[in-house]
Parts: sequence; structure tokens; C-alpha cells
Amino acid sequence: MNEFELISQLTQSLPTNSSVMQSVGDDCAVLDLGIPGKFLLFKTDAVVEGIHFLNTTEPEKIGHKALARCLSDIAAMGGMANSAVITIGLPKHFDAGFVKRIYAGINILATRFQVAIVGGETTTNPERILISIALLGTVEKEKCVLRSGAKTGDAVFVTGELGGSLCGKHLDFEPRLPEARWLVENFTVSSMIDLSDGLAGDFRHILNGSKVGSQILGSAIPISRDAKVQARAESSAKPPLLAALTDGEDFELLFTVRSRDAVLLIDKWKEQFPNVKLSCIGKILSKPGLTIRDKNGVRELGVKGFVHFGE
Amino acid sequence: MNEFELISQLTQSLPTNSSVMQSVGDDCAVLDLGIPGKFLLFKTDAVVEGIHFLNTTEPEKIGHKALARCLSDIAAMGGMANSAVITIGLPKHFDAGFVKRIYAGINILATRFQVAIVGGETTTNPERILISIALLGTVEKEKCVLRSGAKTGDAVFVTGELGGSLCGKHLDFEPRLPEARWLVENFTVSSMIDLSDGLAGDFRHILNGSKVGSQILGSAIPISRDAKVQARAESSAKPPLLAALTDGEDFELLFTVRSRDAVLLIDKWKEQFPNVKLSCIGKILSKPGLTIRDKNGVRELGVKGFVHFGE
Repeated sequence: MNEFELISQLTQSLPTNSSVMQSVGDDCAVLDLGIPGKFLLFKTDAVVEGIHFLNTTEPEKIGHKALARCLSDIAAMGGMANSAVITIGLPKHFDAGFVKRIYAGINILATRFQVAIVGGETTTNPERILISIALLGTVEKEKCVLRSGAKTGDAVFVTGELGGSLCGKHLDFEPRLPEARWLVENFTVSSMIDLSDGLAGDFRHILNGSKVGSQILGSAIPISRDAKVQARAESSAKPPLLAALTDGEDFELLFTVRSRDAVLLIDKWKEQFPNVKLSCIGKILSKPGLTIRDKNGVRELGVKGFVHFGE
Repeated sequence: MNEFELISQLTQSLPTNSSVMQSVGDDCAVLDLGIPGKFLLFKTDAVVEGIHFLNTTEPEKIGHKALARCLSDIAAMGGMANSAVITIGLPKHFDAGFVKRIYAGINILATRFQVAIVGGETTTNPERILISIALLGTVEKEKCVLRSGAKTGDAVFVTGELGGSLCGKHLDFEPRLPEARWLVENFTVSSMIDLSDGLAGDFRHILNGSKVGSQILGSAIPISRDAKVQARAESSAKPPLLAALTDGEDFELLFTVRSRDAVLLIDKWKEQFPNVKLSCIGKILSKPGLTIRDKNGVRELGVKGFVHFGE
């Protein structure tokens, strides 16, 4: 059994109660605890030495990444982050200076987004550093964006540029909180997700959640410079478009809006966020499935890339 | 630098915001997010294989312990638990059956206390299982009990029996949520903490937080059967009273009430919780410090036990 099969089984019958509006299966859990007009958002995420960072990684970036991953999930709900608690597992003979610099990275990012760090647990994890952060946020009930609201005809957008994140962006990416807040305050966003496992895989969560399909346009996919450079430098590297569709840890927002709002959105976005790219990459179709149209025609897009018919 | 010195440095200048009523330094963080009449409680805690449990431990008990530790902290604030998110770190070749049984232990306890499990993160932690749980709760503003409210003259109480928890109780203890709720609903509890590191150490958090002292009575300390059995069985074991004062993981509640309520509390408690011992072990003094009176006279009580004058 792999990790995903295990998760699928573990989440089949979780305890719930009347405050739960949305449990596992979206970027954050959504809770109604009686805040007038608002939902609470609740999320946990972890980074582990040797998996998500190396012991040679600049420690401030480790802390930044640990918190930014959670912030990105709050953004994907249209929410505002409020407070976090941190569990850190440390080898017995830890380097206190290194740990303090990890916290400095967390604190700088937390301060920028007015996130209070309100608790922590330090424990022994003998072989490697592990940081788990749980984050609380809030969102106005009518602005909360789930993965399940995409409608046939909606336009599909993605922020920033995709692919090649492991060249460096995964450690210092900007969680798209201001962009997401601006979106939900100015447009009706019908669905949204943050891209952590690659567009080809993550888009399926919106499509399956919304019971719709989509066709995207290969030439519209915003490919990062890193993905292009990597493809040129290494013959074994993924072609740039494939990297943009399947590389993980982009932490950009993928979202849908009504197609009649698409042009206005593009115009206003340019004024508001001149340095962040916004790309309309396709539209939502009633027919399930995810396809991509490019110079080779229309192909099915699987989690790991193009599905060649007959394979 | 040890773990406690590190924590002390890390928590000196944490980011905060206007919603934070109590940050690190109590059993839970206390947040005011606008729920009419209520505070939110927020807590994280972790258990690690080889540290808090063994790979031979019954997996349901691992899950029970992981959640019960957090529930005990919600109890210590007088609160009610609401929902939890779980990070689990697993070796690459994990035993899916074992992990499912850990979750079964979590789910059974969560269901009993109406705690919703609303999210999770599964990550690789190659050498050992690590479970970090973040828990949300609520408490009526006027019922929220901090460590800092003990007043001179207050009576000091402890639930259950202390010491010898590692004989087994640490894996299947009952978080004192019903008892704590009954206490705050029926009495004015001036301070409360859950005992995780031993009474001698944890009581200091109340005394320092409240800027008071205390004298406790050796003969009033409720000593567990396990602590007594252990002392008889092993000549190297702690004497029972010392075990009751300094063993960790009791997860009982230590709290203070006005002395004029003490007798009524004892009477009502016996009716309400006939199977849970409640002991009045001493009183709060204005003079700082923690002393114990027993057949040897009055001695100072240090974190690790009796402080013999002249040592």
C-alpha cells in the first residue's frame, strides 16, 4: 500500500461534528465555530530534512518554506491567516544556532502576514529535523472558495509561472495571500487550489470535486525560466511544458471564474499585480476528464503528463 | 544548549497579533477571534517512536496517547475540544495495518469527546513514526482558566493518583475533560495545569505564573499503586512519594480554588466522580517557593525532588 492509498483509507470514516463545513479533501478544513459571518480555516503541513530540505539548506529558508506551504493553503480558500503552532523534532545534539535561524525564517514571514506564533512543541526526532506547522485562518462565509464550485463554461486561470521549482523557488516562494484576497474581494471565484503536486495532478482535485472536465491550451501554460533552463542544460530533464504541468511545489494558485469576468479580471490584475503573471489556460467543460490542446492535437493529460493514446 | 534553554530563547520574541489573549506559556494558546462569549484554544503536541512509545506498543494506544495529551491541555484551560489536524511521519516501508490501528485509537477517543478530525498530512520520516496533533477547542471567556490566577490562601487540589505512569497509564490515561468542565461550571477555579512533567516541576508553572508560593503536605499526595509496586519491586526505584512528585506523564489536573469552597468541592466531587480521587494537597502562600511538609519536617521541593539543605 502506498501513501496515497493509505490516506484514502484513513480518511474514509473520520470523526466529525456539527461545526465541520468541509473536512479533509480541500486545501484547508472549514469550521463554523460561531464567528459572525466567518468560517475558521484549519490546516497542518510538515517539512522533513532530506525530503523537503537538506541539512545544507539555508535555515531561514527552511522556516520560510515550512510556514509558506500552510499560508498557500489558506490563500487557496480565499482566507486570511491568523495564528500558528509549531512542532519541531530535533536530533539530540542539535545545532541551536541553526534552529534559531529556522525560527527566524518562520517569524519574518509570520510577521509580514500578521500571523501570531502561539505555541510549540519541541520533541526528539533523533535522525533528522522535522517541522510540522498547524495554521488557523478566517474567511468571510460568502468568500470561502472550495475546490468543488467550478461550473461548465468557467475560465481557468493560473498565477505565476510553473515548473522547475526545485531549482530554488520551493524554498523562497511567496504565498499568494494578497492575490487570493484581492480575487475573492473583487470577483466570484468558483473554485481554487494551490499547486503543490503539479497542475496535471492538482487540477484533477478541482475537476473531480466539481464533477466537471477541462481542456487547457498548451501554448497558454506559463512556463518558468527555471524549467526552460533545466531542459536546455540537461538532456535527461523534462521538456519545459511537461515540467510546467507536472513538477511539484509551484505553490501558485489555480482557479476558475465565470468566463464573462475573464477579460475584466486580466485587465484589473495587471494594474494590481504588475509583477505577477496571470494566465488564462483553458475552460471548464461538462464532460469529465482533462485534455490539453497543442501543436500535436488534443491529448489526455494524466497526473504524470500526456497520455498517448494506445499506450 | 539543552531543549529548555532553546525553547526559552525561541519564545522570547514571537510574532503576535491583536487576537492573541495568551500565547506560549500556558497549556493552550488563547485566541479571541470574535466568537461571542468564547475564546478559542489552540494546542500542538507530538509523540515519537522510541521516545513516547515503542514499535511494540499496541498501536491503538499510540493513537490514544497522541490525542489524549492534547485533550488534557484543553481540559487544563477548562475548555471543550472541537477539532484536530494530524501530521504523521512514516518510514518508507510502513506497515499500513499498524498505521490504521493508530488512527483507530485516535478516532475512538475523538468520537467519545466529539472531536472532529478535519485534516492531516502524511510525510516521510524514514527512521521512525512521529505523530503531531494540533487541537482546537473553545471555552467561555469567564470560564477560561490560566496558570496565572492562583491567589494567596487558595486550596491546592490534584485529581487521580500520581507516579509510575510509565508502567502503563501513560498510554491509556483518561484526559480529565469532563472533570475540568464540571469544575469550571460549578466552582471558581483560579488556576489549573495538567501534570505532564511531574507535580514538583509543573506546579512551579502555576506558582511562577501567579507570583505566589505553596506548601504541600507529603501525606496528602495521592500515590498511585504503580508507584508503590515499583518501589517494592526494584531497590533502585524511586521511593513512592518521590515518584508521585517527580514522575512524568500523569496527565492529572492540578488546580486551585478559594479555600472557602474546598469542603463543598470535595463533597460534590465525590457525588459526581465517585471513581476519580480528588486530593487537597496544600495551600497557596504569598511567599514564593515550593515546600513540602512531611515526617521529616519542611523541605524545599525542587523539580527533581526534595532539596536537602546544605546540598
